[in-house]
Amino acid sequence: MNDRMRPRPTSDSYAETTHMVLPNDANTMGNLFGGQLLKWLDMSCAISAHRHCKRVVVTAAVNNVSFDRPIKLGDFVTIKAHVSRVFHTSMEVWADVWVEDQMTGDKIKCNSAIYTFVALDQAGHAIAVPPIEPITDEEKGRYEGALRRRQLRLILAGKMKASEATELKALFS
Amino acid sequence: MNDRMRPRPTSDSYAETTHMVLPNDANTMGNLFGGQLLKWLDMSCAISAHRHCKRVVVTAAVNNVSFDRPIKLGDFVTIKAHVSRVFHTSMEVWADVWVEDQMTGDKIKCNSAIYTFVALDQAGHAIAVPPIEPITDEEKGRYEGALRRRQLRLILAGKMKASEATELKALFS
Amino acid sequence: MNDRMRPRPTSDSYAETTHMVLPNDANTMGNLFGGQLLKWLDMSCAISAHRHCKRVVVTAAVNNVSFDRPIKLGDFVTIKAHVSRVFHTSMEVWADVWVEDQMTGDKIKCNSAIYTFVALDQAGHAIAVPPIEPITDEEKGRYEGALRRRQLRLILAGKMKASEATELKALFS
Amino acid sequence: MNDRMRPRPTSDSYAETTHMVLPNDANTMGNLFGGQLLKWLDMSCAISAHRHCKRVVVTAAVNNVSFDRPIKLGDFVTIKAHVSRVFHTSMEVWADVWVEDQMTGDKIKCNSAIYTFVALDQAGHAIAVPPIEPITDEEKGRYEGALRRRQLRLILAGKMKASEATELKALFS
Amino acid sequence: MNDRMRPRPTSDSYAETTHMVLPNDANTMGNLFGGQLLKWLDMSCAISAHRHCKRVVVTAAVNNVSFDRPIKLGDFVTIKAHVSRVFHTSMEVWADVWVEDQMTGDKIKCNSAIYTFVALDQAGHAIAVPPIEPITDEEKGRYEGALRRRQLRLILAGKMKASEATELKALFS
Amino acid sequence: MNDRMRPRPTSDSYAETTHMVLPNDANTMGNLFGGQLLKWLDMSCAISAHRHCKRVVVTAAVNNVSFDRPIKLGDFVTIKAHVSRVFHTSMEVWADVWVEDQMTGDKIKCNSAIYTFVALDQAGHAIAVPPIEPITDEEKGRYEGALRRRQLRLILAGKMKASEATELKALFS
Repeated sequence: MNDRMRPRPTSDSYAETTHMVLPNDANTMGNLFGGQLLKWLDMSCAISAHRHCKRVVVTAAVNNVSFDRPIKLGDFVTIKAHVSRVFHTSMEVWADVWVEDQMTGDKIKCNSAIYTFVALDQAGHAIAVPPIEPITDEEKGRYEGALRRRQLRLILAGKMKASEATELKALFS
Repeated sequence: MNDRMRPRPTSDSYAETTHMVLPNDANTMGNLFGGQLLKWLDMSCAISAHRHCKRVVVTAAVNNVSFDRPIKLGDFVTIKAHVSRVFHTSMEVWADVWVEDQMTGDKIKCNSAIYTFVALDQAGHAIAVPPIEPITDEEKGRYEGALRRRQLRLILAGKMKASEATELKALFS
Repeated sequence: MNDRMRPRPTSDSYAETTHMVLPNDANTMGNLFGGQLLKWLDMSCAISAHRHCKRVVVTAAVNNVSFDRPIKLGDFVTIKAHVSRVFHTSMEVWADVWVEDQMTGDKIKCNSAIYTFVALDQAGHAIAVPPIEPITDEEKGRYEGALRRRQLRLILAGKMKASEATELKALFS
Repeated sequence: MNDRMRPRPTSDSYAETTHMVLPNDANTMGNLFGGQLLKWLDMSCAISAHRHCKRVVVTAAVNNVSFDRPIKLGDFVTIKAHVSRVFHTSMEVWADVWVEDQMTGDKIKCNSAIYTFVALDQAGHAIAVPPIEPITDEEKGRYEGALRRRQLRLILAGKMKASEATELKALFS
Repeated sequence: MNDRMRPRPTSDSYAETTHMVLPNDANTMGNLFGGQLLKWLDMSCAISAHRHCKRVVVTAAVNNVSFDRPIKLGDFVTIKAHVSRVFHTSMEVWADVWVEDQMTGDKIKCNSAIYTFVALDQAGHAIAVPPIEPITDEEKGRYEGALRRRQLRLILAGKMKASEATELKALFS
Repeated sequence: MNDRMRPRPTSDSYAETTHMVLPNDANTMGNLFGGQLLKWLDMSCAISAHRHCKRVVVTAAVNNVSFDRPIKLGDFVTIKAHVSRVFHTSMEVWADVWVEDQMTGDKIKCNSAIYTFVALDQAGHAIAVPPIEPITDEEKGRYEGALRRRQLRLILAGKMKASEATELKALFS
């Protein structure tokens, strides 16, 4: 195995960014547009994926994202992203969204999002990515669940038959 | 049933928008950022959801989105969105993404995306939405699949047990 | 006549886009800036002109545009554009601006705008454009008026003498 | 006559702004979008109109604008605007567009544009504007032509009959 | 001393953000505009100042910033900011700018910037800020130098006489 | 001395631009962000530096900038910049910031800023800049002070020893 493909710890891919919600980012009720958050998440996840593989990366898929808590005009939104698992040429990237209470400074977790990125070589073709090594319990938990989420994504995209998704089938039996 | 809750045909919610991919929308290889497309999709789906319910709407979730074909700098991207099904206070909105061949004008479908929106009253609380009536075969097909996709979304968000998702279980048996 | 120059129906050039008026698009009284609408109109007309001629197009002129009704922050603005007539290398493009009543969904026509575009070949020189065939009465009416508007534009730009504008002279006699 | 309505010299309304053409302002051939220039022109004319009347102003119309010379990516574009004539509650504003040669510094005039603005009181109603006093020959020439341009604009907008446009009729006889 | 004015460790004010340099952020030679970096720095420093004092903060001054290394289109720019010292109602904030080598992932420090922010109460008046406690050697070094930099800033702004700047005088003797 | 290096009067470098403060430019208290003003200042100074030397210019440093007066949402901000002195390959550029009273039109000076730019040849290397000739008293005063400010900047950047800064030492003796 050459050096480029040497496994790397999950922490090498950590990426953190804080945004302030400006007027053009919010609807007439003063809530952050979902679409603006999706754009910020994509950028943070791309930076994380690039830190892992040191290649140009492109978004391959957005897995389920829920918006459970409104984020308000003027809020500071912190996105923390890391690669959760590698599948040959693709990476699952997990991003957590935190909002700070402006009086106490407490950070409240608003939601999580999962994106999939693919690494490209200079000709624009998919290229293999080094494996990732989860260390903490949270990193390990997300690594474990990634296989199940991937089967789901492939079924939804019509690229895998439900009957072949052995990990997922177990959930429903 | 009052007039506000009168069922409406799917076609009332149609929304169409064409964007041109500008330099700031694309990465250094000249491909549209996934995050920019997600933002445009969110805006188109919000307009569609509003046309159906005539209320302020907020993004509740993004269901699975795949990016199968790169979209290039300078391309015209047309997004066509419509409400596919109503679940009391929420709406599933389906958006198709088309890119035009600049020489022939042929439109090529790049991918589809599914968002969920919730309608709000003036105090910001979720409010019931009128039912939708699919007419064409495509509208009917998407209406049928929406229940299955909703169960998946609720399971992924930890709000439903897999064992209760009767529609979905059938897929895996 | 080669295939590229084959006449095309007006409807091939239809382009539709919906924008939401965001805070940065409006003045301190909450009205959409005229300049922002002019920019959106230019983009919609360029897409329409390109759909007709399948060439790079550049704005050659803006004919008279009136802003009769203020458009408000948060409004949905729908622009529908189509090529109204072809003059060898240039195209007159007509755009109608509609705003939706947020409670009833009724679309109210705010104003119309007329732009002129020129088609360019790969070296950046003006190139001939295929003729257009109006079908509906509205398309035919706009086609008829285009000649008069062109004479006006050329007189205003100092490129034609008033005495040569035979179509226009009839108006004032 | 109260002080607010005291006549003011044209030079009080001068407004100058220089922009640099950035990648997002230009098409794939590297030419400034007409729509971006129209937006910059609107902003400069609004500043000029406000300097004359010290009121909120809104765009009422864009008169004929021609784009005769392409403006390139990286160019410095200088817009100089001034009020050319007042018509009770409206102002005709004239803007000249100059581009600098990057090696010699020579400024080349690319085109001129004419916008019409209306002044509003705090309730949003049109309010009378002080008269303007042209001093230089150029200011006087533009003042003279404004009446003719106004008749043209009202005819095109369907608000005046051609037979009543005495100034304009002279042109065609 | 009430709880709001309790001293806080420097690390409470840490703020980190990563940006990607997009086409509109760079000049025609592909180098990041200094002004864009100054805007990003201001935002990161404002977030850091707010994390320290939990109040609305406004920029009071920019101290010397040098741009020694060009930053290129497509680069990832990471800004790390922290409050370095408090002066009653104002805070000196120090920001370091790092750029990642896209092949090796090595982060290279491009420059540092120092801004001063003032905390405001709800009426917009300056309000006292809690003291800061530097822990690491770097934090202590920056804390020590802040007094000298403040005297320089006040002299340059004409708010202090050079003869009163005892700390600074020592430098030149 | 060839023509390119012929001395030029300060007035050749004058650059003026007026901006309107839009919602996205202001914080939640309605005050213009310092960072947005820094970006506008950088652009105006770059235009001024280019007008003097007719070369690509890049920001080398920002000297001390103070923000003494809040600028409000909706204000017109006019920036007037000129080159104040040349140091072989670099130029000190001085920018004054004015805000207009919207009722009286009086312009109030809010603050001044000093930037340093370097001229580049086509290979991206620093290149000599023609001398500048101050004419008015203000131009001469700023020219005189520039040497002292330059020594300060070099000391702060660690590129000059305080003991060598003869001009500056005089201030503190």
